[in-house]
Amino acid sequence: MGVARVAAKWVYDFAEGSKEMRELLGGKGANVAEMTRILGAGRVPAGFTITTEACVSYMENGQTTPEGMAEEVDEALARLEQTAGRTLGHPDDPLLVSVRSGARESMPGMLDTVLNLGLNDRSVRGLADKTGNERFAWDSYRRFVQMFGNVVRNIPGERFEQAIADAKKQHGVTLDTELDVDALEQLTARFREIFEHETGEQFPQEPRDQLEQAIRAVFDSWTGDRAVAYRRINRIPDDWGTAVNVQQMVFGNKGDTSGSGVAFSRDEVSGAPEPSGDFLVNAQGEDVVSGVRNTQDIADLRDVMPEAHATLMEILRALEAHYKDMQDTEFTIEEGRLYMLQTRNAKRPAQAAVRFACDVVDEGLLTKAEAIATIDCEKLDALLHPTFDPAVDYAVLAKGVAASPGAAKGEIVFSAPDAVQAAAAGRDVILVRPFTEAEDVAGFHAARGILTAEGGKASHAALVARGMGRPAVTGASALEIDLATKELRVGETLLCEGDVISIDGTTGQITIDDVPLVEPQMDEHFERVLEWSDELRSLGVRANADTPEDAIKARSFGATGIGLCRTEHMFMAADRQPKMREMILADTIDERRAALDELLPLQQQDFEDILEAMDGLPVTIRLLDPPLHEFLPPDEDDPRAHALREVNPMLGTRGCRLAILHPEIYEMQVRAIMRAQCAVSARLGHPPRLEVMVPLIDYERELEIIEALILRVAAEEGVAREHYLVGTMIELPRACFLADTIATHADFFSFGTNDLTQTALGFSRDDIEGKILSPYIENKVFDRSPFETLDAPGVGQLVRMGAWLGRKTKLELELGICGEHGGDPDSIDFFHNSGLDYVSCSPFRVPVARVAAAQAAIRAGDDGGW
Amino acid sequence: MGVARVAAKWVYDFAEGSKEMRELLGGKGANVAEMTRILGAGRVPAGFTITTEACVSYMENGQTTPEGMAEEVDEALARLEQTAGRTLGHPDDPLLVSVRSGARESMPGMLDTVLNLGLNDRSVRGLADKTGNERFAWDSYRRFVQMFGNVVRNIPGERFEQAIADAKKQHGVTLDTELDVDALEQLTARFREIFEHETGEQFPQEPRDQLEQAIRAVFDSWTGDRAVAYRRINRIPDDWGTAVNVQQMVFGNKGDTSGSGVAFSRDEVSGAPEPSGDFLVNAQGEDVVSGVRNTQDIADLRDVMPEAHATLMEILRALEAHYKDMQDTEFTIEEGRLYMLQTRNAKRPAQAAVRFACDVVDEGLLTKAEAIATIDCEKLDALLHPTFDPAVDYAVLAKGVAASPGAAKGEIVFSAPDAVQAAAAGRDVILVRPFTEAEDVAGFHAARGILTAEGGKASHAALVARGMGRPAVTGASALEIDLATKELRVGETLLCEGDVISIDGTTGQITIDDVPLVEPQMDEHFERVLEWSDELRSLGVRANADTPEDAIKARSFGATGIGLCRTEHMFMAADRQPKMREMILADTIDERRAALDELLPLQQQDFEDILEAMDGLPVTIRLLDPPLHEFLPPDEDDPRAHALREVNPMLGTRGCRLAILHPEIYEMQVRAIMRAQCAVSARLGHPPRLEVMVPLIDYERELEIIEALILRVAAEEGVAREHYLVGTMIELPRACFLADTIATHADFFSFGTNDLTQTALGFSRDDIEGKILSPYIENKVFDRSPFETLDAPGVGQLVRMGAWLGRKTKLELELGICGEHGGDPDSIDFFHNSGLDYVSCSPFRVPVARVAAAQAAIRAGDDGGW
Repeated sequence: MGVARVAAKWVYDFAEGSKEMRELLGGKGANVAEMTRILGAGRVPAGFTITTEACVSYMENGQTTPEGMAEEVDEALARLEQTAGRTLGHPDDPLLVSVRSGARESMPGMLDTVLNLGLNDRSVRGLADKTGNERFAWDSYRRFVQMFGNVVRNIPGERFEQAIADAKKQHGVTLDTELDVDALEQLTARFREIFEHETGEQFPQEPRDQLEQAIRAVFDSWTGDRAVAYRRINRIPDDWGTAVNVQQMVFGNKGDTSGSGVAFSRDEVSGAPEPSGDFLVNAQGEDVVSGVRNTQDIADLRDVMPEAHATLMEILRALEAHYKDMQDTEFTIEEGRLYMLQTRNAKRPAQAAVRFACDVVDEGLLTKAEAIATIDCEKLDALLHPTFDPAVDYAVLAKGVAASPGAAKGEIVFSAPDAVQAAAAGRDVILVRPFTEAEDVAGFHAARGILTAEGGKASHAALVARGMGRPAVTGASALEIDLATKELRVGETLLCEGDVISIDGTTGQITIDDVPLVEPQMDEHFERVLEWSDELRSLGVRANADTPEDAIKARSFGATGIGLCRTEHMFMAADRQPKMREMILADTIDERRAALDELLPLQQQDFEDILEAMDGLPVTIRLLDPPLHEFLPPDEDDPRAHALREVNPMLGTRGCRLAILHPEIYEMQVRAIMRAQCAVSARLGHPPRLEVMVPLIDYERELEIIEALILRVAAEEGVAREHYLVGTMIELPRACFLADTIATHADFFSFGTNDLTQTALGFSRDDIEGKILSPYIENKVFDRSPFETLDAPGVGQLVRMGAWLGRKTKLELELGICGEHGGDPDSIDFFHNSGLDYVSCSPFRVPVARVAAAQAAIRAGDDGGW
Repeated sequence: MGVARVAAKWVYDFAEGSKEMRELLGGKGANVAEMTRILGAGRVPAGFTITTEACVSYMENGQTTPEGMAEEVDEALARLEQTAGRTLGHPDDPLLVSVRSGARESMPGMLDTVLNLGLNDRSVRGLADKTGNERFAWDSYRRFVQMFGNVVRNIPGERFEQAIADAKKQHGVTLDTELDVDALEQLTARFREIFEHETGEQFPQEPRDQLEQAIRAVFDSWTGDRAVAYRRINRIPDDWGTAVNVQQMVFGNKGDTSGSGVAFSRDEVSGAPEPSGDFLVNAQGEDVVSGVRNTQDIADLRDVMPEAHATLMEILRALEAHYKDMQDTEFTIEEGRLYMLQTRNAKRPAQAAVRFACDVVDEGLLTKAEAIATIDCEKLDALLHPTFDPAVDYAVLAKGVAASPGAAKGEIVFSAPDAVQAAAAGRDVILVRPFTEAEDVAGFHAARGILTAEGGKASHAALVARGMGRPAVTGASALEIDLATKELRVGETLLCEGDVISIDGTTGQITIDDVPLVEPQMDEHFERVLEWSDELRSLGVRANADTPEDAIKARSFGATGIGLCRTEHMFMAADRQPKMREMILADTIDERRAALDELLPLQQQDFEDILEAMDGLPVTIRLLDPPLHEFLPPDEDDPRAHALREVNPMLGTRGCRLAILHPEIYEMQVRAIMRAQCAVSARLGHPPRLEVMVPLIDYERELEIIEALILRVAAEEGVAREHYLVGTMIELPRACFLADTIATHADFFSFGTNDLTQTALGFSRDDIEGKILSPYIENKVFDRSPFETLDAPGVGQLVRMGAWLGRKTKLELELGICGEHGGDPDSIDFFHNSGLDYVSCSPFRVPVARVAAAQAAIRAGDDGGW
């Protein structure tokens, strides 16, 4: 801190950059530079990029631009003026520029943009004269005053919107485009009054001063609340900074031969090969993205401006081939000529991602590994999200844009804070808004789904919902939303806050019927992606499954085994609780044994069903883990129950400790397991692949004692030693340090990263994840919960130490992990690189984990190997 | 297991061994061999030792003696017979032998001894003829039948005792020694009937068969319940095994010129240079140790048998000089001639240990380091135990032998199980018994003190109590104990179970007055030992002290600083609780700040007093650590109080986490600390050595935030950065792994080994130390609580990793520990060898820790160095 960086160069012309320079130039700057190289200067308006390093220096030095930057901007501007043949804000023929932010990672809608910079009271007339389009000139100027006032000087947007509404009323028109030159000139004057009133300053007339203010505004926006919140959610470091792109304006608002739009190289929702997108005639790009006007489909551009359409299609193909990924572009057509303003790899929902991956392999564009690497596997979850039950009839209340796939059901809430509060209280909610803005993002997280009355597939709501994998329906124009009364009217129907509504983001349908949600079917593209992933990955993917039903589901999702079958869940079934209670409260060991004898056949049946369902695949059964009092009602007043209560149950009499105090419990469980093994073996004609797992081992001796118990009971039940494995959870820091001795009694280790995280960090998930998480993220202690993504430098090193010491003793030791991290892609990457054999996660995460494991292998260069 | 050991040699003659062969020959065998070398064969009855390896082989091979052992025993016996000039059990002039166990470490009273082996119906008459002492012969034979029956064949002792009582009644006598030859012959016949009745076999007449059975009995006794229990308590490995010593009998029961006794080379209670001990005329050694007959003081031997006494005194000096340690011997005088049967380093109470250490240095016998090494520093605690307040008058109810120093007060219990149960319920008890036996040892642990009606300083009760550092009064013959009714009568006074009694094991006094116990004064010998320890040790010894009073006490005990001042204890004072409660339950941050402002001057005053008391020494003040709800009454029903409750408070919102959620709390504390620093600095004319410590750090960033807070407040209060240190507890496994990054913000680390043990082991001390400890010790998972002695392979490696990584970043990083392990000698040894700068322990443990730190340095060979 406090030490100024020395950079060789703060400003780069677009012609100097390339897509490899993303860190320095930001994503937008690097891609515009790359496009300039591919498509030629004539297709991409010229400009220059002020580097992210300049922004970092600015932040580190108390909002002071670095030495030399102003001069470099002057020089770059001079070159731009020379290329354009115009001077910035020249009274007769002004060069106008846009000023846009551009961070290393795309942060849509998060940072600020100023268009038409360079206009002032004199140059607006020069622009009118030079273009012979007075209306265009005034429309551009009023837009500039509005954006500059709003973005650079923080004047609330509604001040300007109100003035527009007043002007339309005054002139008796309904659309902005119907306002004539005089009306626009008056409106501009009104905007300048607003500016003066709000800031106490005249609207700046000097173009170089406008530019200076705009550049600072972009830098400042990096530390603004919206950007900070977005970075928290998307785990973007605060110290990256943003670049600033200054680009010659081209105009989509020059009349009916002009327009602006966004275009994807393929369908951004389905992934189908046809490009998709939205455009507006006689509009600037902001109009399309804001969702204020309803856009036209890109296919319609063929009819409206066939030449521009053909060129666009050609360019989209070229960009995709060049980037080897689906592209998301912005374009402007100025009087019939197409200009490309931006391109980037398209964020896309899961079904589009898998379809793209399949198609590009089929088209010979990418290898399987390259194609798999294009998938954001965090999103694949959406393919496993519920949809409306197709077998059930329901009344469609309204229909909107299918903006983000998946179905959701919940109580209506009308604001992001309400959504957050309701979700915290455990309620499922649908966030209903006219349209959404950056400040609503927290509500997206909290809500099951998003429903808006305005905006298309490229609207803020659609982009953010797809980014998060939340179902969303946008632009449902039949919805009349009254935020003040918290009411939603659709024709005759009146809905209030708390009423239940369902949306299907795959079809765009909305209903208030109680339609069941059903589990998704895997589509063919996803199946192919999963098959290829299985070819590429070396890490096994097992499932955590406690019931025969879960086991069947896990198998259907491609699990290579069960990595964790929690036997305690079997005790929690309603019909077993009284027996369990009897067992726990038994006065004598004989009474306890009698109660256990009653539980034995029930457990045996469960084990039989699970072993049979997983025939041919390994099944890891964990012996009882939780402390006994967890099976008693909390208000149990039996003194024996009271004696079982613990101050810190997480660190209490659980797992193998319980078994050393009361060996008869594990003895019953092992007997049930071994009898199930015998029964299933007899039915199948071969033994199931049984693995018996002991929880909470700290000391070699603990495992030695329980191993002896398991071997004895197995022998008593006639199960040969080669027909089962004995292993242990490694879930305590001590066990990681002593893994070499523990391994002498284990055929396998399964790292229990949930408990290992709790003990290594001294962090009770029950107590403090809710309390600590957001202050810790705000204070930059960590950027995500250590229970979500493995804490690599602490817990991860314990895992590696345990793995290393375990294999030091026993080279063939089987190593897996069965915490919730087993389904997290970043953690899977870590486990792949730690030499583990498999991860185990919830059945629904299995497909995601299969792809994540393949990507880990690809990143590590292991995909061609073992 | 199952693989027979191959040993070159199973049996060694005494003449072949030496004290260095303790592992192979056991302590007794090695020492008898050594004595034979020093004193010559004529002073030590000849014999041979069967090795511990033979015992191990016997245990490992299902109670089968190893191949070749029987032949070696035969050969050794032949050599012994040749030396003695007699044959084992010969009908005319029988060689008799004793058979005794002897493990590597002394296990007094734990293993079995058979005397007079070789006697049978015929050789008893030969012995009578040969010695011309018929009474002696029959007395020896009846003893042999009794011991053989009891020890080798497990016949309950009371069967024989009852027969003796009957015989005395029948012959109208009160003492065993009054029974005449006929009576003894009849008694022996009766004993043989008892033997036959109990075992269904004739008493074995064949001497070689007797020997064989006795040897096996010794081997078997190693795995007997008494021995196993003793080993648990004394942490002796089960796989050491015991040796068997076969030694020619000499006879203390040959009349009034014979006798047996135990003798210490110095006073075994005070350490004074005069030898001490007990003896009995016309008795065998077992009579002295059993405490059944009241013994005479060894000084009286001068009058009874002056020549033997003079020889004994000479031998005691010679042995002490040879062993360089105080000796504990057993001897027998047979018709005026002294024989030494055993010697070993004397177990002794603390005051004897320190006096011995001082005297031997003064005498030039040992160097200071050698003398310090002779001290069992675990016991030094006794020197710090309370005594009766000398200023208070009290009525002495009775007086007994001052068997183990220190005073104790508690409710009377009459059995070891009652003592254990009462102690578990948190009550202080005194265990009152006629005499004690091996099975009472668990009761010694549980009781505050031990009181017996029988036995002297060498009785079981005295030995065990001294070994454990428990106060004990023995041989209080005025006590009439009725175990059946649980009543204790002393003259007119009747006491029942639960009545309070006090004993002073330093004076032997017993009282039922409510006499206050007072803290001990350090004696001059202890002071010298501590001074020498300070010269020898390199590890600093600080104290954990939370109040000015504790700080003063710590300083008086020689603490080199305060290593842990827990600021939360200040909040718990009755006058501060309401303010603390207000602070916790504050609705707004302003209300909380107002409550904190009221606490600030109170904390400041405490800090001032502590800093002033420790002038010149470092004081480490830890900022608030426990979760806030700990300061609320448990039944608090305020919903805010409820929200603070946690499922696992140990892993909850504590320490620095609390400070990140509510920075105003630490801000108040730091302000109070810094103001105290200023005030004390002004008074003293120089700044106190202040160290501010942050608890529960997991992440570098946590410490960075709080370091910034401390630096800011210190600057606001005008305290210069060089006038205080900032450091952190290292008490979570993650912190050990990340210690290199954490060290960038720390001037010091203090390892919190209590919490580190809880987290590394996943072991809540509150919940499971009581439940798990004894089953875990029984099951050999560990041999002592990991909270008592540091778990070196797990927690210890975390400490070393933290120390290593911390110093990697900052070579000068100050390293200490402040868990309870800081006062444990074995743990101190580990910390010395881990390169720590200091340990911090409770004030009372400081002297122990100073000696332990010196011993660690001596063992490591560091005592001459830094």
